[in-house]
Amino acid sequence: MILDFSKMEVTVLKNFKGGAKEMFVKMFADDKNKIMLSVLKPGASIGYHKHENNCEIIFMIKGNAMVNYDNETLRLNNGQAFYCPMGHSHDLVNDTEDEIMFFAVVPELAQ
Amino acid sequence: MILDFSKMEVTVLKNFKGGAKEMFVKMFADDKNKIMLSVLKPGASIGYHKHENNCEIIFMIKGNAMVNYDNETLRLNNGQAFYCPMGHSHDLVNDTEDEIMFFAVVPELAQ
Repeated sequence: MILDFSKMEVTVLKNFKGGAKEMFVKMFADDKNKIMLSVLKPGASIGYHKHENNCEIIFMIKGNAMVNYDNETLRLNNGQAFYCPMGHSHDLVNDTEDEIMFFAVVPELAQ
Repeated sequence: MILDFSKMEVTVLKNFKGGAKEMFVKMFADDKNKIMLSVLKPGASIGYHKHENNCEIIFMIKGNAMVNYDNETLRLNNGQAFYCPMGHSHDLVNDTEDEIMFFAVVPELAQ
């Protein structure tokens, strides 16, 4: 099925996972996957959290962000992906002066 | 972890899943997910196949493509995603005059 984000409603999540400011997200979800197109404005972030029973794959469409992944601080640039396997932790921080946009998938995995 | 596609080797897959011409793919894979950045030139395609035990999520980065999904012919435009849940079938056909580029995730799902 086609997921046309231009026709999806925007959900505003305040302090998502304990992060700063707001995340603007368009999401499709079933029992197997969450599929999202999200925007973080300058200074906004997704808080640090652990993927206990699933994982996350992010593709950076616009801008770049700081990612703390386990004990490492990384830079996620436009055109790159970030992968957080099950059992690992991360955040996503827009520490830049521009809005960032990213595509993300959170699959419920085979154990 | 960061997946920097600009530093990954390109694999050329001829007639992928029975499709036409070649697919150029940069891939990261572990036992849970395949994460890919792929290019199809005009006339190239991924053949029609069924996702028996996994699923696929595609985000179209550049260009647009025809997708046959079960018994329906769809258009996947730039900025849209395509989702093929487990048990469903699809192809991906570059029937345009321009190269297309897309990001794809194939997770091994909880049953």
